Amino acid sequence: MVESRLVGPVRIVGVGLLGTSIGLGLRNRGIEIILADASPTNLSIAVDYGAGRAAAPGDAPQLVVVCVPPDVTAEIVARELAAFPDAIVTDVASVKLAVLNDLRAAGADVSRYIGTHPLAGRERGGPLAGRADLFIGRPWVVAGHDAITYQQATAIDDLILDLGASIVEMSAEDHDRGVALVSHVPQVVSTLMARRLTDAAASSLNLAGQGLRDVTRVAASDPELWVQILGANATPVRDILVAYRADLDRFIDALADPAAPGARRKLAEELAGGNAGVARLPGKHGQDRRFVSMIVMVDDTPGQLARLLHEIGEVGVNLEDLRLEHSPGAQLGLAEISVLPEAVGRLTEELAARGWRIAG
Amino acid sequence: MVESRLVGPVRIVGVGLLGTSIGLGLRNRGIEIILADASPTNLSIAVDYGAGRAAAPGDAPQLVVVCVPPDVTAEIVARELAAFPDAIVTDVASVKLAVLNDLRAAGADVSRYIGTHPLAGRERGGPLAGRADLFIGRPWVVAGHDAITYQQATAIDDLILDLGASIVEMSAEDHDRGVALVSHVPQVVSTLMARRLTDAAASSLNLAGQGLRDVTRVAASDPELWVQILGANATPVRDILVAYRADLDRFIDALADPAAPGARRKLAEELAGGNAGVARLPGKHGQDRRFVSMIVMVDDTPGQLARLLHEIGEVGVNLEDLRLEHSPGAQLGLAEISVLPEAVGRLTEELAARGWRIAG
Repeated sequence: MVESRLVGPVRIVGVGLLGTSIGLGLRNRGIEIILADASPTNLSIAVDYGAGRAAAPGDAPQLVVVCVPPDVTAEIVARELAAFPDAIVTDVASVKLAVLNDLRAAGADVSRYIGTHPLAGRERGGPLAGRADLFIGRPWVVAGHDAITYQQATAIDDLILDLGASIVEMSAEDHDRGVALVSHVPQVVSTLMARRLTDAAASSLNLAGQGLRDVTRVAASDPELWVQILGANATPVRDILVAYRADLDRFIDALADPAAPGARRKLAEELAGGNAGVARLPGKHGQDRRFVSMIVMVDDTPGQLARLLHEIGEVGVNLEDLRLEHSPGAQLGLAEISVLPEAVGRLTEELAARGWRIAG
Repeated sequence: MVESRLVGPVRIVGVGLLGTSIGLGLRNRGIEIILADASPTNLSIAVDYGAGRAAAPGDAPQLVVVCVPPDVTAEIVARELAAFPDAIVTDVASVKLAVLNDLRAAGADVSRYIGTHPLAGRERGGPLAGRADLFIGRPWVVAGHDAITYQQATAIDDLILDLGASIVEMSAEDHDRGVALVSHVPQVVSTLMARRLTDAAASSLNLAGQGLRDVTRVAASDPELWVQILGANATPVRDILVAYRADLDRFIDALADPAAPGARRKLAEELAGGNAGVARLPGKHGQDRRFVSMIVMVDDTPGQLARLLHEIGEVGVNLEDLRLEHSPGAQLGLAEISVLPEAVGRLTEELAARGWRIAG
């Protein structure tokens, strides 16, 4: 049992992926967790799973965390503010301004409310997708407003830090514009690309490679949830889509006659602009490119990969990431391993000396 | 040395990723490879790398494979047809109709030419990115035309089969429409999304997750190459982009007033259409979902992962894919392992019995 910042109890309303993960993570720190959900089935699954105990009369939570779909978030937050007049109440919905505005319009006591949004998720949902470590190292936005100070909301900071996430302070407006760009518009772009596949010939789809799979991966997301998110953040999403469409128009124009003077230059500028944009992403694909990858050929037997990892350990190099590629029909796997740049030379040498084939 | 279908020698013109990979793969089968490249530096790298020997006077290739950028493909194919009147000549450019039309316009002897396109690639280019196994299990399109029969072009089939790829017969028109959909339009869509990031606030970009990274990954591709590809396949790409724009217009309209009657239904239909489209993709993300994944928590030490893999081997389960996720700041790695569905239950049980924590 590790120390916690929060005192508790913490009441969690809604035991989907996020609510259950919060419960599991805080329980690991010994905090009393009270769970509530409109579905008795989900509630009992989350209780059995170890995310907390079911709500009971007389509960007096320090903090209430509302983890319900965006459409009903404001309504449930207002209900919780009224039901627990001594508690701080927060929510984790992926849009922030609409919730705050709805609460204000309903006359809720927003002096005890501050909205938040953890940038964490998985492709699966539901209580059984919950993971105590879901938030570790992830940004968690706290969207302040002028009816509450950060001092009054220290329980929110404690929640985020106890779960291992990083606090990011932003206004609700800035948050909503930010997630429109990095999450909501990419969802739309991916969905519209995937739409083009619905009546495509199977012979075309058989030519698909990793590029198309990557672009369309998030198009498999839950339409019901996304209608709510997009509806609640319509203006920032629409603004970016309109700018996107202006670029698309230029692309379409240039392709009408690619031999025309300047057409190729226009295409090249758009493509180079894409290079520049993707380079701005932080992390391993962007400017903070901390790790480099090398590819080692591995025979298609489990023992071989274990031996490789054992020998990387012997060399004293720490793996940051590993991906095994296994082409259908191939007798060889390709282990792509990411390590710190300064380790590559030595690791290549040591692995080659041990008989490994390095592919690149 | 394994048996080959091709007799050889095979002349490869252009020793980038594809040319070098073809050379390496055919050399593994004992075929004599002759290399040529406009760059003496690249040529000597490819020769040193083991992809073949440099061209010499008196060479008499059975087959010439032209692996140069799309813009100069037709010109080089025509030159090779003239220089080697007894050879079959092919190319591997990612557009097929423009090359064939240009050859016909130039009066080249297309009775000895048939265009092909291997659907294989890597993010890196150049001779040193070459891999003998690059084509294994990948589709390789053979774009027939009416001046040559498949019987006359058996050397092309031999080439593809010797490299472990699968022959896909398509007309040049069908090929170009297919790759427009599965490769060229996704490139444009990704580029335009990445363009939106160029003047974004860093605080917004810090909220980026895997979804945005996936959608924009291919936007990092080489603009010069893509201008050539898009220019040579402009009509099919433009047709699909125009249809994409019509969907985008509907999305933008619905977002103008998401509370209006029918607006949410329109959004939901678009999103559900995206679900349906992505479900049509063959392979692990689509209908042919052969493998399932499970997540095992692994302490952040190389020895732990080696132990896990060793024990999976002991249980007798074959890993199809493995990915190690390592969150910044976390003491735990998450190993996502893909196995056949029938193995999951037993593997979960056996790993749990050995003390592993299974996360999902």
